[in-house]
Parts: sequence; structure tokens; C-alpha cells
Amino acid sequence: YGKNTIKFLRLHREGKKHFVKEVEVCTHLRLTSAQEYLEGNNSLVIPTDTIKNIVLVLAKKNGIPSLEQFAIDICNHFMTTFCQVMYVKTYVQEVPWQRLHENGVPHIHSFICVPDGIRFCEAEQCRNGPLIVFAGIKDLKLMKTTQSGFEGFCKNEHTTLPERHDRILCGELFCKWSYGERKDFDFDCIWYMNKIRECILEAFAGPPDCGEYSPSYQKTVNCIQMHVLSKVSQVQVIEAVLNNTFYNVLDMKNLGLTNDKEV
Amino acid sequence: YGKNTIKFLRLHREGKKHFVKEVEVCTHLRLTSAQEYLEGNNSLVIPTDTIKNIVLVLAKKNGIPSLEQFAIDICNHFMTTFCQVMYVKTYVQEVPWQRLHENGVPHIHSFICVPDGIRFCEAEQCRNGPLIVFAGIKDLKLMKTTQSGFEGFCKNEHTTLPERHDRILCGELFCKWSYGERKDFDFDCIWYMNKIRECILEAFAGPPDCGEYSPSYQKTVNCIQMHVLSKVSQVQVIEAVLNNTFYNVLDMKNLGLTNDKEV
Amino acid sequence: YGKNTIKFLRLHREGKKHFVKEVEVCTHLRLTSAQEYLEGNNSLVIPTDTIKNIVLVLAKKNGIPSLEQFAIDICNHFMTTFCQVMYVKTYVQEVPWQRLHENGVPHIHSFICVPDGIRFCEAEQCRNGPLIVFAGIKDLKLMKTTQSGFEGFCKNEHTTLPERHDRILCGELFCKWSYGERKDFDFDCIWYMNKIRECILEAFAGPPDCGEYSPSYQKTVNCIQMHVLSKVSQVQVIEAVLNNTFYNVLDMKNLGLTNDKEV
Amino acid sequence: YGKNTIKFLRLHREGKKHFVKEVEVCTHLRLTSAQEYLEGNNSLVIPTDTIKNIVLVLAKKNGIPSLEQFAIDICNHFMTTFCQVMYVKTYVQEVPWQRLHENGVPHIHSFICVPDGIRFCEAEQCRNGPLIVFAGIKDLKLMKTTQSGFEGFCKNEHTTLPERHDRILCGELFCKWSYGERKDFDFDCIWYMNKIRECILEAFAGPPDCGEYSPSYQKTVNCIQMHVLSKVSQVQVIEAVLNNTFYNVLDMKNLGLTNDKEV
Repeated sequence: YGKNTIKFLRLHREGKKHFVKEVEVCTHLRLTSAQEYLEGNNSLVIPTDTIKNIVLVLAKKNGIPSLEQFAIDICNHFMTTFCQVMYVKTYVQEVPWQRLHENGVPHIHSFICVPDGIRFCEAEQCRNGPLIVFAGIKDLKLMKTTQSGFEGFCKNEHTTLPERHDRILCGELFCKWSYGERKDFDFDCIWYMNKIRECILEAFAGPPDCGEYSPSYQKTVNCIQMHVLSKVSQVQVIEAVLNNTFYNVLDMKNLGLTNDKEV
Repeated sequence: YGKNTIKFLRLHREGKKHFVKEVEVCTHLRLTSAQEYLEGNNSLVIPTDTIKNIVLVLAKKNGIPSLEQFAIDICNHFMTTFCQVMYVKTYVQEVPWQRLHENGVPHIHSFICVPDGIRFCEAEQCRNGPLIVFAGIKDLKLMKTTQSGFEGFCKNEHTTLPERHDRILCGELFCKWSYGERKDFDFDCIWYMNKIRECILEAFAGPPDCGEYSPSYQKTVNCIQMHVLSKVSQVQVIEAVLNNTFYNVLDMKNLGLTNDKEV
Repeated sequence: YGKNTIKFLRLHREGKKHFVKEVEVCTHLRLTSAQEYLEGNNSLVIPTDTIKNIVLVLAKKNGIPSLEQFAIDICNHFMTTFCQVMYVKTYVQEVPWQRLHENGVPHIHSFICVPDGIRFCEAEQCRNGPLIVFAGIKDLKLMKTTQSGFEGFCKNEHTTLPERHDRILCGELFCKWSYGERKDFDFDCIWYMNKIRECILEAFAGPPDCGEYSPSYQKTVNCIQMHVLSKVSQVQVIEAVLNNTFYNVLDMKNLGLTNDKEV
Repeated sequence: YGKNTIKFLRLHREGKKHFVKEVEVCTHLRLTSAQEYLEGNNSLVIPTDTIKNIVLVLAKKNGIPSLEQFAIDICNHFMTTFCQVMYVKTYVQEVPWQRLHENGVPHIHSFICVPDGIRFCEAEQCRNGPLIVFAGIKDLKLMKTTQSGFEGFCKNEHTTLPERHDRILCGELFCKWSYGERKDFDFDCIWYMNKIRECILEAFAGPPDCGEYSPSYQKTVNCIQMHVLSKVSQVQVIEAVLNNTFYNVLDMKNLGLTNDKEV
């Protein structure tokens, strides 16, 4: 059981300059006993209201140094405070606020929401087991208008899809990776310095002047995974999912027009 | 990989009387090889377009005798037709169309959508393994306005929730159960005759004249599970989740009013 | 300006029997002056927080005798209490909770949400003008699988739609009508006794044994309007919108099958 | 009546460089006669399927020079082709695809969806009347973490809101303006050169080093309107709506903490 979507904004001030982190936190617990299910005995149950309070108190006291560190802190708190907790998992995602700029000058306290990919992380731990940290990006909508095809697939009497060597590839990317048991990383540094997001975009798009041919969604997804693993040494395991959106070339013959994949 | 949300309506006619099944089907496959990911070799890949065609052809040829039988037919088709398929899972859910009635007389071809719980099922099979059938109901929104409390829970300095012995219990129920390896059941008969839905509602609400006290969401969820298992012998395993919605009693003291849990 | 979606549940008890009304209220005001926009002078502004409090206090004090009466009470309150209010409009919609029944016996305190059409109403008034009451139903999803066509329409070189005399007619109905200036009606009585909802369904579906041919969405919408006007004398003006969902007959020729409008 | 959400992507190629416009078009018509409603006579009705075809053919033939020009072309087409059309309105909105950049180099055919405000426009015309062009931006989520308050408002016994001189101002901005009857503008030039979007952000945020105090949502909305009108001479009328999101300072007293508007 657990508490979903504890949503709050943490404001940090350095003089007149403001920094915001608006996050959504989900924390799930498993207890040593199931007596609340079987007997209706609630004595070990930590109410979801208390879970929410703990998350808010930790945010107030420590701030949110990085999403990952915050998730680790929450897991640690539950493990060390409640001996009836067997397992804890915490998910944190960030609302993509960006500082406003006016003619290149950053604004001290104004922000705009730019949802071109949502950063998230997860920390989980079993009692007596290691704490594992995951991070990821989701809702990253990408498109390439050529250098993509799908040919040579399995055919039988139910096949109506034509072979295509030039189609639009478009989808929403979900990407999640593990940093393993290490929790002393500077997670924001890995994110910003190693440019994981840029790695993903590069692997999807290929070189800016010509792109790179994608023979299938599957191959592109694998390229993204391989590229991140090779460029970011801290990443141990990675999973990518491209939720594809189909664009069909409109047949305009019955309207008297030749459509060269323009519509 | 697979094809999500193949959505279609199957119309069945008996003379002038019409019967509709509008369903949403998701079929996922795992292949014996990952060469399409690693090498971009698509020769074993069954395109999602072909998956869609197969589902539609089966619906056209066999109709949809029951959701479960339809899911079984789809799994069987993939297992027997494609030797490169290692694993297949098919999910089917039904749009809740109900026949219209005018003064008690059923209409021969008019229907209304009544989404008070969505019926779904799932069939899955590994090559050389048994085919397992699941069924379930989701999006079933229930409420009881008394006979519910939450007391005696774990407390510490982060606890602000008061003990309550009379609160509103409200939530969206998700319930999924397994019929095991048997696939010769008359699934619609089990659904309608054994009244699984009625079992769930009874276990949630208790006797109509007095209800039954719920000491927690957890206990109520367990009651629902136990009640279905005891009443419907074909059900082997069951899982229920109640996604609770909180209703707080409004404090109206600063508005000069005493609110006896009315608002 | 105004306050959208004030959402609350009003519980009414008669002995052990409970009655619920969960509503969503939106109240909009126009003031005599625009000085808060022009000069930033807030002295006439009634904060949306106060609007919310007023709605909740009225619900607590008077209950919700009917949606319409509640909307009227809110409008009256603002008009009589605040002389700076030039215009007030209140919209109320109801969450469709229905009492649970077990073997035909109504449950005293358990409910299920059955969203087969959402009932709503609106009251509006200009200072020195009459108070007008509207009511309606929305999100009513209906389908008829035959007795519907679309023929004889305007054609030119951009027309690709074939003439059809037997298609599926399906859509989400929105229907709103005015009761005029009369506010002494027993609105729930009109709703339940005159069976407006039944009128609408009848007009859509036609007689249960044969239906009635619909030559277009437009004609069916007009039939619904005419039918309600003729059957419910209190309704002065009515507007119906059918947000149609298209069902296309699948061409299965390339799959070697003849599809007689079955899929 | 009309056709909603005709969704398509128009691909334009200049050598190897690709340009995309993915748009959603809604076109509504009013006819000279209501005989299809009253008599079921469809002879003047232009099927929504034909409307869709016309929009697609215009996109194919002319491309989408600017959203506004495309909307004008559609309106013109209906007015000049169908003498039974009394009134036509066309709405066009754009999916916010942006060209990908790798280390500052623009990619020739890869794009990312960046939904920080959706650009839209509208053109409408009555027969024998002028064609009016509107443009706008919506879903622009903005926040400032200080320099906002709400004081000196109207108070009575239902007021519980405290006066605040330092709160978070956050909301989703909708802004729509009219270019009047002129249709020979270079609309994209006005958009990009006059920086309407930048005007709006400036008026919301104030100077980057100190901001500007907002005494209410109303005043800020009016500032945005005034600022655009003063900076962009082509804009004749403007309407802005800020759908505010409330952020409350969490009371942490019962958790033993002083919260200086940090959470």
C-alpha cells in the first residue's frame, strides 16, 4: 500500500534569486505482517496521511538537493524509523519549470513550464538488501520525417502492410535506467554533465546533416539504449520504450491528386 | 512488443434483433530471437498491422462468444500459426453498452453506454506452457457513507490524522481473478450466474438494512477477495485494489456553523 | 470572473437511511466596476475563496432540495448580499450516485456511480432582470445499429463519402433547455414525473420493436428537441447536440472476407 | 454544424531539409436553410467528410504558409464554392514541433515536441460581411514566486481568506486577439518579429532583476492586454484569461516546524 501523488512545490531562495522544484512523490510500503488485511488490526499501519507528512517534513528540512537524493532520503527515513517496514519504494517526478529569460537575461523569480520530457527517479529497498536508484525521462515526443523504414518482415495471408523504406518515425519515448547500489553519486552532475538527454536525442536522430537510417522501432530503441550505456559509465541497466504514433500517407488519388508523402 | 487498443464493434444479428460487442484488444508477443533489436533483421517480426488484421479476422469469423473465449482464440491463433512466438498475452475489455428499454420493453437495435464497471479479461501462454485465463472488472466506483472507520494505527511525531470511527469510504475498485488453466468453462455463465459483480458489491456494502463495519480499506479489500473465492468455485486466485478517494469533513467553525459530517 | 468547480458531497440522513448529493458548482460574477482590472483596486472584489464559502454554507444550511433550487438560492444570495454584483450565473452538475440494491432491497448507505448521462442546471440573473433557469443532461452515449442513413447530400469533386441507407448512428448527447423565468416549479418532479430523459431516449431510438429511420444526425437532433417540447410543457426552449462517433464498415476484401457490416 | 479535429501533418521539403506543420483544424458552417433539421432533406448539406477532404486538398495544394493564411484560404474556399453557406468559421492550432539541435547544429529532419504554449488562429466570415482573423496562444503555464499579493478585497462574515502581500502567482494563460479585417498581413512576420509571445511573458514577469508587483490576477491580465496592444500595432482587440492554480503555504506548526513559504 502507499500514498500516491504527494504534490508540492519547494521554494529555495538565495538572496533575491528564487529556485523552484515542484514534484510529485509516490511512496509505497510493504509491512512485515498482513494483520490489517486479515484481522482488521491496524496497529502496524502507517497512515498514508503520515507518509505524506514525512515526505513534506523531509522536503522542508533538507530541501530537494536532487530528485534522486530526495528519494533516497525518503527510503532511508522509512527503513530506519519503522521496523515493521519490509520494503519501501519511492518515485519522484518533477514539473518541468524553467527560468524565464528576457533578452537573454535570466529572471530572478519567474518561470515557464516546458514539458519536453519529464525527469523522474525511483529508489527502492528491501530490509537487509541494498538500496537501488533508478532515473529516467518520459513523455519525450520525437519525430523524424525520413531515414526510417520497415521492410523484410514476416508475411502471410493476414499481411496488408506494404514494405516501406521511407516513412515518418514518431513516438513518445520512455527511458529508465539504474545507477545500481551506489548512492554517493552526484546525480544532478551525471544528468547535466553527461548529457543523458542529449545522448538519447542523438541516438534517435543521427547526425544533424544526414540522420541515420532506422530499419524498425526496435532497432532505434536498441540504439538509444546502447548509446547511453556507452557514453554514461554510471548507468548499469537501461530500458527504453518508444510508444509509436503512426502517420499514414493519405491516398489522394480519388481526389485527383498525387501525394508525395506531403500530407 | 505488440499492438495496443485495437478497437472495433462486432454486430451480431438474429432476425431483426441486434447484439453488439464493442471491444478494445491489446495483444503482446515475445519472439524466440531478438535479432530485430540487435541487427535490424525484421524477418521474424509480425507487424502490428498484421496483429490487428488477425484480431479483426477472428472477430469476423467466430464472433465474440465471450470476452474470455475470444482472448483464448487469439492466443491459440498466434501460438499455432507462428513458431517464432515464445509468449503471447491478449487483453480484451468491453465498452459497457446496454440495450435500451422503453416502458420495460427491450429495444431491438438501440443501446446506451452505462459505465458502472468495465469488464475485461486476459489470456496468456508461454510456448509449451499452459494457457491461463484471467477476468476482472475495473472502474467500479463505490461509496458507503457510514460503517467505516480507521483507528488504532501506528502513531509518532509525524502523525496528524485523527482516529475516526465514522467516515465515508469511497473508491474505485479494480478486481482481477484467475480461472487457472481450464479453458472449457462457459465464462459468460460464470459471470452472469455466479454473479461475481454482485458478490463484490455485497462484500463492499454489507447487508442492505445495516451494512457492515469496515475498520480499514485493507480489511474491506480482503473481505471482497474472500467473499468471491467462497462463492465462485471456479476462481482460483483473486486480487482486489480499492483506489480510495478521500472525503474530509469540512471544518465550518470559522463560518459559525457546526458541521455534523453533512458537508 | 468566478470560482470553478467547487466540489463537495452533501449527506442527508433520515434515521439510518442516508441520501447523498455530490455536486460540482461553478459561480461567475460580473461587477459594476472594473477598477480591479484597471487600477488594481480590489475593494469591490469578492474573493473566489469567499464564493466557495458561500456555496458551502448554503449547502449546509438549506441542503440541496434540487439542483435547480440550489442554483437559484446561490444566485439570490449574491444579488441580495452584494450590491456591486451586476450579473451572476451558477452552474451545478451532479455526480451520478445511485443507491445500491441487493436482491432488489435498497441499501441504506451504499451507493454506486452510474455515469449514463450527467444531470446539470444553470441559473442566471442580471441586476433588475429576471432569473432564468436552465436544466440539462450531458455525456449520454447512445447508439442504434440500424435505421439510420445519410443520402441525397450535396456532391462535388471533393466528395468521397458514399450514400448510405443503413449505418450505425452513435454519439454523445448534450441537451439543455430553459424553464424560463418561473422559479416556483418543483424541478425534481418535472425531471422524474415528466421523464425528460425517457423522452430523449424514445426520440432517439424510436419504437422498441422497429425503431424509426433517421435520415441524418440533424433530423434526429431536431426530433429529440420537438419530442421534449411536445411532452414537457414547462420547457420553453431546448437545444440538443449530438457529438457523433463514426463507425466505418471495415473493408475486408484484401483479407479474403465479405464483411456484411459485422465488424 | 461542422467537422472537428481534422488532424494531419504537412511535410515541406527544401532539398534535404524538411519542415513540418502538424495542425488540427475545425471548420463550422451555417447554411441558408434548416431543411435538413426540419424535413430531413439533405440536398444542401456538405458532408463533414467532404469538409475534411477540402481542408486536406487545400493543405496539399497550397501548403500551410502560415496558420492564419491557411484558415483564410479555407473560409474563402467555402464562401466562393458553396452558395448555401451563410457563415463559415475555421480554427487551426499547431502541434509545437521544434527542430532538434545537436551541439547547436540544426537537424535536417528531426523534431521534438515542446508544448510551452500552443499557437492557434481563427478566421470567420458571414456572407456579405468582412473576414475577421484572430490569433492566439493557449496552454502557456507561467509562475512567479513573489511580487504578487491580494489585499484590500471586499470582506464579510463568509470571508476566511487572509490578506497576502507575498504569494505565488501561477496559472495557465489563454490569450486571443483580433487582426481585424485586414488579411494581407504577413502573419508569421507579426508573430515572430513583433514578439507577441515575448510581450506576454514580459508583462507577466516584469523586469528580470526585480519583477513587478501584481496586486491581483485581474490587474496582471489587464497589464498583459495593455502591453500587447501598445507594442503590436496590428492587434485591434485582445482578450487574456489566466486560469489560476493556487499554491497554499503549508501549515507545519502541528509538525513542530516553521514554514517560511518554502513548502
